[in-house]
Amino acid sequence: DPNLKVFTLNSNKALAEEIAKVIGVELGKCSVSRFSDGEIQINIEESIRGCDVYVIQSTSSPVNENIMELLIMIDALKRASAKTINLVVPYYGYARQDRKARAREPITSKLVANLLETAGATRVITLDLHAPQIQGFFDIPTDQLMGVPILADYFKNREFSGDIVIVSPDHGGVTRARKMAERLKAPIAIIDKRRPKPNVAEVMNIVGNIEGKTAILIDDIIDTAGTITLAANALVENGAVEVLACCTHPVLSGPAIERIQNSQIKELVVTNTIALPEEKRIDKIVELSVAPLIGEAIIRVHEEQSVSTLFD
Amino acid sequence: DPNLKVFTLNSNKALAEEIAKVIGVELGKCSVSRFSDGEIQINIEESIRGCDVYVIQSTSSPVNENIMELLIMIDALKRASAKTINLVVPYYGYARQDRKARAREPITSKLVANLLETAGATRVITLDLHAPQIQGFFDIPTDQLMGVPILADYFKNREFSGDIVIVSPDHGGVTRARKMAERLKAPIAIIDKRRPKPNVAEVMNIVGNIEGKTAILIDDIIDTAGTITLAANALVENGAVEVLACCTHPVLSGPAIERIQNSQIKELVVTNTIALPEEKRIDKIVELSVAPLIGEAIIRVHEEQSVSTLFD
Ligand SMILES: Nc1ncnc2c1ncn2[C@@H]1O[C@H](COP(=O)(O)O)[C@@H](O)[C@H]1O
Ligand SMILES: Nc1ncnc2c1ncn2[C@@H]1O[C@H](COP(=O)(O)O)[C@@H](O)[C@H]1O
Repeated sequence: DPNLKVFTLNSNKALAEEIAKVIGVELGKCSVSRFSDGEIQINIEESIRGCDVYVIQSTSSPVNENIMELLIMIDALKRASAKTINLVVPYYGYARQDRKARAREPITSKLVANLLETAGATRVITLDLHAPQIQGFFDIPTDQLMGVPILADYFKNREFSGDIVIVSPDHGGVTRARKMAERLKAPIAIIDKRRPKPNVAEVMNIVGNIEGKTAILIDDIIDTAGTITLAANALVENGAVEVLACCTHPVLSGPAIERIQNSQIKELVVTNTIALPEEKRIDKIVELSVAPLIGEAIIRVHEEQSVSTLFD
Repeated sequence: DPNLKVFTLNSNKALAEEIAKVIGVELGKCSVSRFSDGEIQINIEESIRGCDVYVIQSTSSPVNENIMELLIMIDALKRASAKTINLVVPYYGYARQDRKARAREPITSKLVANLLETAGATRVITLDLHAPQIQGFFDIPTDQLMGVPILADYFKNREFSGDIVIVSPDHGGVTRARKMAERLKAPIAIIDKRRPKPNVAEVMNIVGNIEGKTAILIDDIIDTAGTITLAANALVENGAVEVLACCTHPVLSGPAIERIQNSQIKELVVTNTIALPEEKRIDKIVELSVAPLIGEAIIRVHEEQSVSTLFD
């Protein structure tokens, strides 16, 4: 369909190339660069008048640069008479700032949703929002895809010597662990961190049976990897045979890589919603592609079919 | 007035301190930092409920970081029940992307105006917009202050051996040169670049009499300093005794400092709308403060008086 155009910005070009291949189109011609003073310069180099345009951009680090690229691209597309402007945001940054945890905090996640709509976005396709409520921050249609089936399929095709157990590293992630466990027909366990008294170190209580098992930790985002590596070490201390970990969004900032290297995590399975720079591509990390999932979702959205059946 | 609060973000803290002193207030308590992954974290550390808040932030380089800081701060202030949110943007970045010069270009200057309003800004105070039309990009009240009087006063208080002439480095800047010339009771000249044939180097025609005079070049923004240094050299070649230059906004990106050092410009007079990092503070550059002007404007706006009389 000549009216379907896919463009990429700078956050994750490799993923965008893969998605274009899945759909069977070439990426749209467009240059996204910087003027000498750091201002973003965008040149869309082909007509998109009357087209359904899909723009691929994760708002991962450098998050503020990537958000501004996306906003300016939307503005350019709108003024160039695109029919629809569909954002494909595999990783939606600022998702952890989704409520006022303290007085006078911003709710940046909602702010960014408003900004994208103000610029002219007409639809958003994303993966594993940190909280499902973030969908409601948009007044335009949103499709939330899931990373769990991709991660589960990977583990399904592997051999483990003994039984496995899916572990949530905190009480907030139990629903996600449950979904994974159902797909793998495995039990769940939860790490329940408690501070016995103020100013005393937290204790890692493990709820559920992990002894003699292969434990698979699951989270949506792994950022500095503090929680997940402490959890892995606690699991081994408490009798797990081995510990693997997985997440959809490998933010991996600051000390993350060093912590993972030095932890009891044998293997960390992630997806490519966030591009991993060379220095983060260590042997322990296995990367799975979300391109087939996103490609299929784009085709379905473009053909006005439901994407929810993708997960049956 | 305890209802008047002035906050600064990270782009130009020194100017903000000066402005606070002019007004006679302390800067509001607020920390603007980064999470490990580069996301902006803002904590407003005092109540601003029901207050008229002034936020000082130039959208200079790093422009995208500075715009996002401003947007997130506005969001936090709005949710913390500020009565009015007044942006003080001494340098308004992206101002040169104020029209579609080619097909499918964004109009980022208008986009940013929309974003600021969406976030919740209720007024904008700025200095020397690249084009006066940019005021119309906002649907909230805007006050545009002028740098020319500050620059003109500086030259008025200096001795020159002979006559002076105010020179616009291109035909687009003649109105600005005229304003400066009126204040200094001096004539004007214009550099009229012409390309005689395609693929032939531009020729610098000088319109007006500069021979034997001290030429003072004026522009609003000096970015890579290509135009202004070529102009200075042309003026000396054509008989000017000496060349000085001035501008309101010293963007000074890329090769700017080196070009200025190696040019015929004897002295470059700028204002502090954009903070100059240490490596740009060379002997040739003289910095004038806009703090008294902006401070006075804030007081007048807060007292619901006109700011236009500031320039009589
Ligand atoms: N980029 C970030 N990195 C680390 N913490 C964050 C970030 N953004 C927000 N937060 C904090 O994370 C908490 C919310 O995380 P969660 O409980 O996992 O939803 C809030 O206290 C936020 O202030
Ligand atoms: N940050 C920037 N640096 C250099 N040129 C720019 C920048 N932003 C926009 N432009 C270009 O500058 C031209 C407008 O400048 P002007 O003619 O001075 O208004 C347009 O062609 C823009 O594409």
